Amino acid sequence: MNSLPVLQPTTDETCCAPAGAPALGAEEARQKALVFKALADPNRLRLLSIVKAEPDGESCVCDLSGPLDLSQPTVSHHLKILVEAGLLHREKRGTWAYFSLVPGALDDVAGILAAL
Amino acid sequence: MNSLPVLQPTTDETCCAPAGAPALGAEEARQKALVFKALADPNRLRLLSIVKAEPDGESCVCDLSGPLDLSQPTVSHHLKILVEAGLLHREKRGTWAYFSLVPGALDDVAGILAAL
Repeated sequence: MNSLPVLQPTTDETCCAPAGAPALGAEEARQKALVFKALADPNRLRLLSIVKAEPDGESCVCDLSGPLDLSQPTVSHHLKILVEAGLLHREKRGTWAYFSLVPGALDDVAGILAAL
Repeated sequence: MNSLPVLQPTTDETCCAPAGAPALGAEEARQKALVFKALADPNRLRLLSIVKAEPDGESCVCDLSGPLDLSQPTVSHHLKILVEAGLLHREKRGTWAYFSLVPGALDDVAGILAAL
């Protein structure tokens, strides 16, 4: 005779999620917060908008300090954060570094919001 | 004899936009950065995800401190930032405050990214 599988009582089987159970785990939230930290600065938003507006899709670091009235080390610091967050791609050519948007990166951030 | 208009040499007339002209103004960038500051914290992302996951669309503040293992004053501090950023709506009923997502708020943030 086959034994039927024993059904264990499930204490969390309710009509809805247990009150206040985090839909987003701690480690996942820590990861996702990093990209918003990168975006949480006016100068970094302006740098992204400059790079995005360039017809050829990239900006030389030498062209980015002037319009924001920031020193080049400060601009480089902000650009580094945007690169580390996966929003900008950096390519060194000769003397200068050139920055372009990582394709799909801003859409991915929008996707994080949609999936919260 | 008509004199021809004198063509002034234009130093910024290039094949593309003037290098590094900010597409996003300083004040606009400051405003837009505020909402990303609100999102730039793992606990605030988790709070948003809990509220969003609630079947009736709102969470009592009394249910939000337990799952994140945070004190109620800390949770209230994070909720205040999310309300001030226009992401959560707060409604006091009786003893407790209830929080719900502001309709369209997360879509608006995605719109900021698309319009950078």
